[in-house]
Amino acid sequence: MRRPFAARDRASSVSRRGLFGLGAVSAAGVAVAAGGAAARADGSAGDASDLSARLAFGGSGGTGFASGVVPFTGPHQAGIATPVQDRMHTAAFDLTTTDRVAVIRLLKDWTAAAARMTAGHGVGEGPIPIVAASPPDDTGEAIGLPASRLTLTVGFGPGLFEKDGADRFGLRAQRPAALIDLPHFAGDSLDPARCGGDLVVQACADDPQVAVHAIRNLARIGFGTVSVRWSQLGFGKTSSTTPAEQTPRNLFGFKDGTENIAGTEHDLLDRHVWVSGAEGPAWLAGGTFVVMRRIAMRIETWDRSPLTEQELIVGRTKGEGAPLGGGVAERDKVDVAKLPADSHVALVHPDANGGHRILRRGYSFVDGSDGLGRLDAGLFFVAFVRDPRTQYVPLQSKIARNDAMSEYLVHTGSGLWAVPPGVTGDGYWGQALLEG
Amino acid sequence: MRRPFAARDRASSVSRRGLFGLGAVSAAGVAVAAGGAAARADGSAGDASDLSARLAFGGSGGTGFASGVVPFTGPHQAGIATPVQDRMHTAAFDLTTTDRVAVIRLLKDWTAAAARMTAGHGVGEGPIPIVAASPPDDTGEAIGLPASRLTLTVGFGPGLFEKDGADRFGLRAQRPAALIDLPHFAGDSLDPARCGGDLVVQACADDPQVAVHAIRNLARIGFGTVSVRWSQLGFGKTSSTTPAEQTPRNLFGFKDGTENIAGTEHDLLDRHVWVSGAEGPAWLAGGTFVVMRRIAMRIETWDRSPLTEQELIVGRTKGEGAPLGGGVAERDKVDVAKLPADSHVALVHPDANGGHRILRRGYSFVDGSDGLGRLDAGLFFVAFVRDPRTQYVPLQSKIARNDAMSEYLVHTGSGLWAVPPGVTGDGYWGQALLEG
Repeated sequence: MRRPFAARDRASSVSRRGLFGLGAVSAAGVAVAAGGAAARADGSAGDASDLSARLAFGGSGGTGFASGVVPFTGPHQAGIATPVQDRMHTAAFDLTTTDRVAVIRLLKDWTAAAARMTAGHGVGEGPIPIVAASPPDDTGEAIGLPASRLTLTVGFGPGLFEKDGADRFGLRAQRPAALIDLPHFAGDSLDPARCGGDLVVQACADDPQVAVHAIRNLARIGFGTVSVRWSQLGFGKTSSTTPAEQTPRNLFGFKDGTENIAGTEHDLLDRHVWVSGAEGPAWLAGGTFVVMRRIAMRIETWDRSPLTEQELIVGRTKGEGAPLGGGVAERDKVDVAKLPADSHVALVHPDANGGHRILRRGYSFVDGSDGLGRLDAGLFFVAFVRDPRTQYVPLQSKIARNDAMSEYLVHTGSGLWAVPPGVTGDGYWGQALLEG
Repeated sequence: MRRPFAARDRASSVSRRGLFGLGAVSAAGVAVAAGGAAARADGSAGDASDLSARLAFGGSGGTGFASGVVPFTGPHQAGIATPVQDRMHTAAFDLTTTDRVAVIRLLKDWTAAAARMTAGHGVGEGPIPIVAASPPDDTGEAIGLPASRLTLTVGFGPGLFEKDGADRFGLRAQRPAALIDLPHFAGDSLDPARCGGDLVVQACADDPQVAVHAIRNLARIGFGTVSVRWSQLGFGKTSSTTPAEQTPRNLFGFKDGTENIAGTEHDLLDRHVWVSGAEGPAWLAGGTFVVMRRIAMRIETWDRSPLTEQELIVGRTKGEGAPLGGGVAERDKVDVAKLPADSHVALVHPDANGGHRILRRGYSFVDGSDGLGRLDAGLFFVAFVRDPRTQYVPLQSKIARNDAMSEYLVHTGSGLWAVPPGVTGDGYWGQALLEG
C-alpha cells in the first residue's frame, strides 16, 4: 500500500494553477485514488464522497475563473489606478521577526498567493488538500466565488526600514526620504491601535467575502512572521477612478471624488502618482506612496444641519454635486473664488494647491456603535501620492485648520507606506528593495 | 414675496412617494420657484444649479425604483422568510423615554420610513428638502441606488415590557412567556455592550450602503427617543432560504445552512417559525422570535487543523458539503447515527432534536482585529423560532457542552426579541401591542 504522501509528491509536479481549476479533476482524482482514502483511515468520510467533493469543487469552482480578473503583474501594482471595486478589506501587519530571510520568504509567498487569488484560484493546493491529514493551504470560504476583480496592493511602512532605532533588516539606507513620520494635524484623535504597521495590504474586490478571504489567507501565510496590527472593512467606494461611472456618495450624502484622477489619465498619473526613477530610491521607481486615514464622521450632527449649510460646507449642491457659485452640473468647472472660502472644495481643489492632485480610493465604514448611542461610521480615506511631503501634508494641514467640514470629522487612524512597483515575471513584491 | 415655508405647505399636499421619484420634478420645480431661492438668500448657491440639482436628482433617483423591491406589507414581516440578501446591518436600540406615546410615535414614524425605504424611496421629503434651510428628512447617501431588496425587520426585547423592575410603558402584562432572559451557556463570553436592546432592527439588502442608510435614518428619526446600543455589519450570508441557490460558505470554509427552512416551505414555517393565534399573546400572532448571537470564530486555530479533522468536526465534507458516513452530494440524506457523535451536524440535525427546526439568516463579519494579532471575525447568527424555550435553548445548551466545534467559537453578543407580525393597510409595527 502506498503511503499517503506519495500523492503529495506526485501532485507537486502538477501546475498549481491547474489544481484549483478544471485541471484539478484529474490531478485530484489521481490523488484520491493514490492517497486520499489512506489519509482518511478513520473511515468516517467515505471514499466516494471524498472523490465527489473534489470533482464537484473543481467543476463549480471553475465557473468564474475567466471573468472579473484584474491582471496581477505589470509595471505598477493593481489596486491603485485600476478601476475601484465596491468593497475593501485592508490590514496592517507588524513584522515579528528580525530575520531578513524570513521577510524575503514572506514577500515571495505573499506574491505567489496574491497571483493565484487575484486570478480566482485558491492558495497553494487550494482548500481541499491532496492529503486530507494536512491543514488546507487555502481556507475555503471563496470556493465557487469568481475572482470578483480582486486586487492586492502592498505597502512598506517606516518600521520595515527602522524600528525603535534598530535597523532590523539592513534596509535603513533604502528608506525613501518621502516616507516620513506624518506630523500631528489639528483635530487628530488617533488611536495607536489603528495607526501604522510595518506592512499594509489593501484588498479590493466586488465581493467582501473575496477581499476578506485574501487578507485572511495572507495573514495565515504570515503566521510566525507577522501579526495583524489592525484591519478595516470598507464598503461603498467613495471615489470613482473611471470617468464614465456615476460618482458615489459618502456618508454625508454628497458625491465624493468628482475631480479624482482617472486610471486612464496616464499623464496625470505620471505627474502626481508614480515615483520616477530619477527621484529615487531606485527600488521605488514605478511605485508610489499611500496615505490611509480612518476618519470618523459625526453623522448625527451633520444630519441635523440644514441643507443650505451642508452645501456651503461642501461647496457643491447635494443633489447633482454641481459646484456652488454658478455650476449646474457635477462636472462644471469649479471657480474657487466663487466658493465660500472655508468650504471643503475651495480648500482641496487643485487650483488652491499649486496644481497638486492626489489619487483617492476611499471607502465608507460602519464599525458598530461608539458606546455613546451613535454609529461608529465614517470614511476610510486612501490616497496615492508621488510625494506625501508636498501633496498630502500641506493639504491636510490646511484642511484640519480651516475646513468648515472639520467640525464633523475626527481622524482616528493614520498611516503612510511606500508602495513598491508591480511584479513582473518571476519577481516578488519588493524584490528590488530586499535584494538591492 | 412669499415666505419659504409656503413651499413646504404646498408640498405637504403632494404624495411623499411622488416627491422622491419622477413626480419630484414638478413638485420640486414648483418649490424652487416658490421658495428655494429665498431659502438660499446667502446667494452662494445659484438658483440655476439648485433647480438643476433637483431635476437631475428626481430623474436619476428614479431609475432603480421599480426593481429589487421586496413588499413591505403582509401578514409577516419581510426579512424573515423572504430570500436572504447578501448584506446585513442590524442595530439594537434602547428606549430613552418613559412615555408610551413617544414609543407609539416612534413606531409609526419608523413604519412610514421603512415602507418608503424598502420601496427605494428616501425618508419623508427625501434628501433634498423643499426648504433648503431645513435639515433634510433623508441623509442622502442612497440617492440613485436601487431598492436592492432592502428589508427591515423589527423586534421587541424584554426591556420594552419591563426594565429594572419598572413597567415603563404599561406593557408588562403583554410580555410573551417565551420572551425569556436567555440563560448563560457554557463558553459564553458575552460583552454587555453587544447584548440585548429594547428594540432591534435588522436591515438586509444586496448593497451595504442601502442597509446602512436604512439603519442610520431610523436612528436619526429616533433621536431623543432611542439611542443605538450596538450595531453589527454582516456580509456573505451564511444561510440560503431559497432551495435552488448555492449554499453559501461560512468563515470555516464550509457550506452552512444546507438544511435550512426555505421560504417556500409554508407548512414548515407554520410549524417552526410563525406564532399562531392560539398560543398567544394575541398581538404576536403571525410574528415570531429572533435570536441573535455574535459568535467570534477562532479562524487562525481552525486554519491549522487538518482537513480530516475539520470535516469530522463539521460532519460534512468541505468541498461538496456531503454528509459524512456515505453521502456523496450536499443534499444527500443525513444519517445522524453514522456521524461522529460530537460533530456539529450530528448535534444540530432535526433528527437529533425531536424534529425541532430553526430558520437561520446568519452573516459573516470581520470587525477589525482583536488586539492580539488576529482578525476579529466570525458569524453573526440569526435564527427565527416559534418558541425559543423549546427550539433554541436546548439546542444551544447541547452544542455549548458537546459540540467539537465549540472549541473554535466564542459567543460575544446575544439577544432575544419578539418579532411582531407584518404591517397591513395603514397600520404600524407593533400596533396590536401598543393599542391592545
